[in-house]
Amino acid sequence: MTDLRFLVLGSAAGGGLPQWNCNCSNCAAARDPSFEIIPQTQSSLAVSLDGETWALFNASPDIRQQIQQTPQLHPKTLRHSPIRSVIITNADVDHIGGLLTIREKQAFDLFSTAAIGTVLDANPVFRVLNPAFVQRHSIRLDEVFSPLAGMEARIFAVPGKVALFLEEGEPELGLEGEQTIGVEFLANSKRAYYIPGCATLPDWLCERIRGADLVFFDGTVFTDDEMIRVGTGTKTGQRMGHMPIIGDDHSGSLDVLSQLDIGRMVYVHINNTNPIWRDGPERDAVTAAGFEVGHDGMEIDLA
Amino acid sequence: MTDLRFLVLGSAAGGGLPQWNCNCSNCAAARDPSFEIIPQTQSSLAVSLDGETWALFNASPDIRQQIQQTPQLHPKTLRHSPIRSVIITNADVDHIGGLLTIREKQAFDLFSTAAIGTVLDANPVFRVLNPAFVQRHSIRLDEVFSPLAGMEARIFAVPGKVALFLEEGEPELGLEGEQTIGVEFLANSKRAYYIPGCATLPDWLCERIRGADLVFFDGTVFTDDEMIRVGTGTKTGQRMGHMPIIGDDHSGSLDVLSQLDIGRMVYVHINNTNPIWRDGPERDAVTAAGFEVGHDGMEIDLA
Repeated sequence: MTDLRFLVLGSAAGGGLPQWNCNCSNCAAARDPSFEIIPQTQSSLAVSLDGETWALFNASPDIRQQIQQTPQLHPKTLRHSPIRSVIITNADVDHIGGLLTIREKQAFDLFSTAAIGTVLDANPVFRVLNPAFVQRHSIRLDEVFSPLAGMEARIFAVPGKVALFLEEGEPELGLEGEQTIGVEFLANSKRAYYIPGCATLPDWLCERIRGADLVFFDGTVFTDDEMIRVGTGTKTGQRMGHMPIIGDDHSGSLDVLSQLDIGRMVYVHINNTNPIWRDGPERDAVTAAGFEVGHDGMEIDLA
Repeated sequence: MTDLRFLVLGSAAGGGLPQWNCNCSNCAAARDPSFEIIPQTQSSLAVSLDGETWALFNASPDIRQQIQQTPQLHPKTLRHSPIRSVIITNADVDHIGGLLTIREKQAFDLFSTAAIGTVLDANPVFRVLNPAFVQRHSIRLDEVFSPLAGMEARIFAVPGKVALFLEEGEPELGLEGEQTIGVEFLANSKRAYYIPGCATLPDWLCERIRGADLVFFDGTVFTDDEMIRVGTGTKTGQRMGHMPIIGDDHSGSLDVLSQLDIGRMVYVHINNTNPIWRDGPERDAVTAAGFEVGHDGMEIDLA
């Protein structure tokens, strides 16, 4: 078995659904069992070839809950984990917070760019990952690496910005470097991408993912001013480093990605305010384009 | 209404029950819905006087899940939280990790000793708690402070050690300083204590809590060599800064606390390996002494 298997551990953006201090209509509905909105945890994807060993792409603060609700990730012996590696795609809290949880003398490989590694090193609290057990690897952009035995992957810069807690004044937006990366998976002549944060889709990036079998893509906000209109924030999606699903002049990810002959398109990293969480015209627009709304527990085998 | 109300948000020690990489008999049972062991989250206590505003004692990595399963802590308006303050009793990850989750421009007061504040300051990742919203307060040992309007509390040093991730070589054990604190609550002529980590019960500490109406106390391990015997670790409870429930020559917390005329005694911060999680002679010993085993969602009103 060398098919790529993907398991969405968390489909929501930072804060999750519901977010602890938010009572927007989505969050309120997610707290009410009589509504159709099921609570969703923060952004993380598990990937496997054999179904026995798994690589985690991003360690969300909800990782303990995510492991608990995912039998594939339960330990098989007294001290054990099927999680063999963790790869970090940016240094925001929703992607690194869970590193504090997967301590307890468990061996795994931790992959990141040097820039993200520097952020971790600057915080002594991450020493809970004892180097005697957790081996750190710096991976270079566009270099092939192996998150699991037999699995080939490659990271590449995507337009983004530094993590919120590292901002000093107004950050550079649409930065292409080691701060925000996408991941390319290659196996069994299939090609898949994981891009949970992306500020724009420039031509070079479109060409890179054109014709892919599967793309998980940044679905943070439906429209750029969504948080402002809902009243939960003052920032645009763009300011947060996320392109909207629908934009002016067909500039949103839905229109751009629709042109790229992608086999299966799944939105992940979806903010609690995003209307695609519930039935309605926005979700209909996504599904009419043949795209899917990711959800916790979603499994995709690229057979 | 000025009664003290306590709500156990998380009764387990670091790692929770089950712990992500542990398959000991307790953890395995907690993953199996047909067993009597209900999963428990990591160490945190909510306290209120009016039932409307709450102070959190420790911010566990499970805080998002804890808030979600506690209607008292749900937001009431678009952006809101009944949580008005957070108090940290030591800098271990199970008590500070949740600070990364309660971001999102929500105002609250964060209280700690200067020593614990220094640990937070040394980690830029805690800048997610924007100082424009989260006000930091250094509290001094034995000084009265007010975690909530109308509530009086006092912190005091208890025997402990520095957080695991700050250890360099063999740490000093039984240190009495700002690293590990207990909390005393005074309201309506009632007196209560929260002491989730404690290495020993010296005479002065016994005298302090003697005659209290309620004590939440460190129930990490039942016996000092428990983790070694279960095979999940090489450290004694003592080495981790936690005194056992049962010790040689009646030196365990059960025997010592039984002599102190305490109204209601509740064990919290219980390790996943502790046999008191399940029915059996160890749990019987605790309940025969009139002590209670804390559990997530446990409510106590000191009326």
